[in-house]
Amino acid sequence: MVDVCLPGTGGMLPLVRRYLTCCWVEVMGKAILIDCGEGTQMALSAAECHVSRMECLLITHFHADHISGLPGLMLTLGNQGKTTPLVIAGPAGIGRVVSSLLVIAQKLPFEIIIKELDQKSPEKFEIAGLEINTLPLKHKVPCLGYNITYHRKPVFNPQKAAALNIPVTYYKNLHAGETVEIDGNIYTPDMVLDGERKPIKVTYCTDTRPFDGMVDFAEGSNLFVCEGMYCDDQMREKMNEKHHMLFSDAANIAQKANVPELWLTHFSPALTHPAEYKDDVCKIFANTVITRDGIKKTIVPDDNI
Amino acid sequence: MVDVCLPGTGGMLPLVRRYLTCCWVEVMGKAILIDCGEGTQMALSAAECHVSRMECLLITHFHADHISGLPGLMLTLGNQGKTTPLVIAGPAGIGRVVSSLLVIAQKLPFEIIIKELDQKSPEKFEIAGLEINTLPLKHKVPCLGYNITYHRKPVFNPQKAAALNIPVTYYKNLHAGETVEIDGNIYTPDMVLDGERKPIKVTYCTDTRPFDGMVDFAEGSNLFVCEGMYCDDQMREKMNEKHHMLFSDAANIAQKANVPELWLTHFSPALTHPAEYKDDVCKIFANTVITRDGIKKTIVPDDNI
Repeated sequence: MVDVCLPGTGGMLPLVRRYLTCCWVEVMGKAILIDCGEGTQMALSAAECHVSRMECLLITHFHADHISGLPGLMLTLGNQGKTTPLVIAGPAGIGRVVSSLLVIAQKLPFEIIIKELDQKSPEKFEIAGLEINTLPLKHKVPCLGYNITYHRKPVFNPQKAAALNIPVTYYKNLHAGETVEIDGNIYTPDMVLDGERKPIKVTYCTDTRPFDGMVDFAEGSNLFVCEGMYCDDQMREKMNEKHHMLFSDAANIAQKANVPELWLTHFSPALTHPAEYKDDVCKIFANTVITRDGIKKTIVPDDNI
Repeated sequence: MVDVCLPGTGGMLPLVRRYLTCCWVEVMGKAILIDCGEGTQMALSAAECHVSRMECLLITHFHADHISGLPGLMLTLGNQGKTTPLVIAGPAGIGRVVSSLLVIAQKLPFEIIIKELDQKSPEKFEIAGLEINTLPLKHKVPCLGYNITYHRKPVFNPQKAAALNIPVTYYKNLHAGETVEIDGNIYTPDMVLDGERKPIKVTYCTDTRPFDGMVDFAEGSNLFVCEGMYCDDQMREKMNEKHHMLFSDAANIAQKANVPELWLTHFSPALTHPAEYKDDVCKIFANTVITRDGIKKTIVPDDNI
């Protein structure tokens, strides 16, 4: 199971009633946070996301509304007693930006491991047992979309194990992919497993102009979280200028990618009631959620095994 | 008249229900903000302090809870169309710290004028027609207390002006301290003014250990805003370690300085209901206010002229 939360859903500047856009993905007690604007630590607290579980911070880009909360959050992690390393990944230059911001948050009690990501081509890496894939987006500055994929262990077949007289205490090791030796006999995972299960995948894209590559990137996701800065088609020209998307742009991508669910986020401060436009966007993609701060979902795959 | 507001009253980290400590002082439509932690722009918005009126940001010290909101606020000022310069003053090194933080807020449409202040001895300067005085405080890092003094114009005596046959159109110039020449005759302000009026003074001290110099610094203030990180005397040792003050420390200074009113602020996140301790602290200094976010006061001097 994968827990997803959007503690904040606003773009540009933090409002009293809407924190800045970020995304929390938690699997088996280990969490990844995407973006950290001013007030994100307050948003995480309000949404009851436990920052002590954070293993990684993914930054989409260096606009302040996506990264200005970094020094405060680092200090809070330190004050909470974090001593294990934190990976901070983002577009090339992230090391320099983090280092500049930490001028006011020095002597942290944990190590920060910087991972600079390519802006020209997609990358794939693993953090906290989760597979991360990137997609270079089309914004005013280098910006990355992220896929977070949880590869579940294959189905364990206890009948097969019992037929081989394998003691129950070894089931866990075999299920985890280890080969075990019992009384001189070698048992490999394939002898007791029943094939792969579908992974759980969350796709997160903000800030960007819409483009075809996003469809491929979102395909196969259980949840597609995407920016929708404005809803009104009259704002199309402004969105071109500002390198952002309309609700309808995101819905078109969701429809083409054939995802089960779209969460819209990163609303303009001028958009005080984004939910008013739900009916319009649902005509393009029926299962669109106009999110609010603190929205949560536990993704349980269809097969439920 | 001087408007004072504490949009936030918390120390260390921003809470969902308590923004970080800062102070807004506004006179004749021009405002000075003291400190700008994470979320301060939200606090200012909630307290209806109009940031477009800001002429100066005074920073007490470089701990994140007092300065981490700077890049976000600068961008918001820019987005609101600010083109006039903003003075940012703080302890020596402020230029380097501001420059580092602005790595995520470049190309601002207004000039930032940095004023580095001495940490060893008090300084006096003028911003937006207000006199600022500093006091080096005793914290873990260089830290400054601030006095903001509004020197009101002397009383204008229209009888004196009329007796000299000065046309009414010149009253404003003479009242503003200008000498005027009318039909070859020279008129100086002292010919029509009735002497000085008491200035209005606000004193702001956080973060620090208590010390005698604070008494002199606060003396003559209409309002003394002072940190009280904890209330309980059992926390005295911790306050020594952390270089902070108890409620009782602040009340003792207010009592010795004989100020009319003390506002306590910068409460520890662990202190969920600081007002519970009001009776105790009022035994030391009766007119103590345990503040809450958004507290406001318009200081009208006693003489009311």
